[in-house]
Amino acid sequence: MGKRNIKLVIQYDGSGYSGWQKQPGVKTIEAEVISAIENLTGCESVELNGSSRTDAGVSALGQVANVRLDTPIPTERFAKALSQYLPPEIVVTEAVDVPDEFDAIKDTKSKMYRYSIYTGKSRPVMQVNHCWHRPGRLDIEAMNKAGRKLVGKKDFKSFAAAADKRTSSVRTILRCETSKDNEWIYIDVEADGFLYNMVRNIVGTLVEIGRGHWQAGKIEEILEAKNRSAAGPIAPAVGLCLMWIKY
Amino acid sequence: MGKRNIKLVIQYDGSGYSGWQKQPGVKTIEAEVISAIENLTGCESVELNGSSRTDAGVSALGQVANVRLDTPIPTERFAKALSQYLPPEIVVTEAVDVPDEFDAIKDTKSKMYRYSIYTGKSRPVMQVNHCWHRPGRLDIEAMNKAGRKLVGKKDFKSFAAAADKRTSSVRTILRCETSKDNEWIYIDVEADGFLYNMVRNIVGTLVEIGRGHWQAGKIEEILEAKNRSAAGPIAPAVGLCLMWIKY
Repeated sequence: MGKRNIKLVIQYDGSGYSGWQKQPGVKTIEAEVISAIENLTGCESVELNGSSRTDAGVSALGQVANVRLDTPIPTERFAKALSQYLPPEIVVTEAVDVPDEFDAIKDTKSKMYRYSIYTGKSRPVMQVNHCWHRPGRLDIEAMNKAGRKLVGKKDFKSFAAAADKRTSSVRTILRCETSKDNEWIYIDVEADGFLYNMVRNIVGTLVEIGRGHWQAGKIEEILEAKNRSAAGPIAPAVGLCLMWIKY
Repeated sequence: MGKRNIKLVIQYDGSGYSGWQKQPGVKTIEAEVISAIENLTGCESVELNGSSRTDAGVSALGQVANVRLDTPIPTERFAKALSQYLPPEIVVTEAVDVPDEFDAIKDTKSKMYRYSIYTGKSRPVMQVNHCWHRPGRLDIEAMNKAGRKLVGKKDFKSFAAAADKRTSSVRTILRCETSKDNEWIYIDVEADGFLYNMVRNIVGTLVEIGRGHWQAGKIEEILEAKNRSAAGPIAPAVGLCLMWIKY
């Protein structure tokens, strides 16, 4: 009998972690989830196929992974049982049996990241690990105008970390919206896929536009350059949160 | 020349701290603020008069303290400068010169605490240190009915920790309101003063009523008993936040 293929939805406060991906000698989300699965099921050498390799400090409310397991635990009980083996800042909110061919990375239709900026004078102590504290006014309209210029199937090479080794830097951004709630600003970016550091580089660029250093039209110039140095500085990791993944 | 008397408004995420009050060998908010003041001003043996001795794990968005200092730093710059000497989870949002006789403890008119309960199924990873995660429905109407019975000048001995040594347990509750926002429940309690553990014991009791274990009328019985054992179990510290203090 083959192993079951189980899809997990995972939430985490990434502020105390060295990112998603398992690495020797550091605390990672993936390692915690694998160890919880092994402790719960008694399975060994579990391999987790996580959709997004979120960076150190990045959080998630909708990370998705699939895992092949030989366990009799029914999926209705799996999420809750697994969460009891996880630290307080990580939780599995859903577990479902999926067809054997389901792959959390390859089958992604789109993902949404939210970036949070706090613009108030004093740092927000209760959310200090979940935002970029950047006092001062930002022009939301200009940021939305610029965001609309990013929507579509385009070469986002200028917004990718130089270290990104993927062959194609063409992605489709479905939405890039900036909204405001009192002193909070949220930048939501939905795409069919992201290059390394892409959201943080987009946010850094939109902030340059929001603070009036650049005009919204600068986006076209940056896209055309196909060079990381054309875009704005990278925004800090702590403001980033993976909200959901669609399949 | 006498020292200046400076009033400070302080915010903190108390989740990693052993409470407000300075104690040898443990991390406290008061010790961090004193050390920041000493580092900023060069003053020695600084004494801070904090209005509320919040417990371990309790947070604040409006703690108030006064401090007597011989420093030329103008108050306009004081809050920001001081915050640069504080860890990320503590910030001073306001500093003003006050009359010499001002005392942050004795001059308190009223204080408001908010207690946050998350009733969703999975623990809320981003706020796990700032709420009581208690899945399941609570009857807000019954909790509000019970809360109204606590309003007024009454003997709250039944809601005070047995360890509370204050001579009088009479206090005036001005407001005790329960509200709901999706899966979040907030209990706001405003009073002219609080006994030790009073808000957490009130919350524990209101939850017994909200879950249907007791009727709202039980409050009168508890007040009359003047005995801690008559009330509900104490609610966890992490859900509590000191919101503001009026003078």
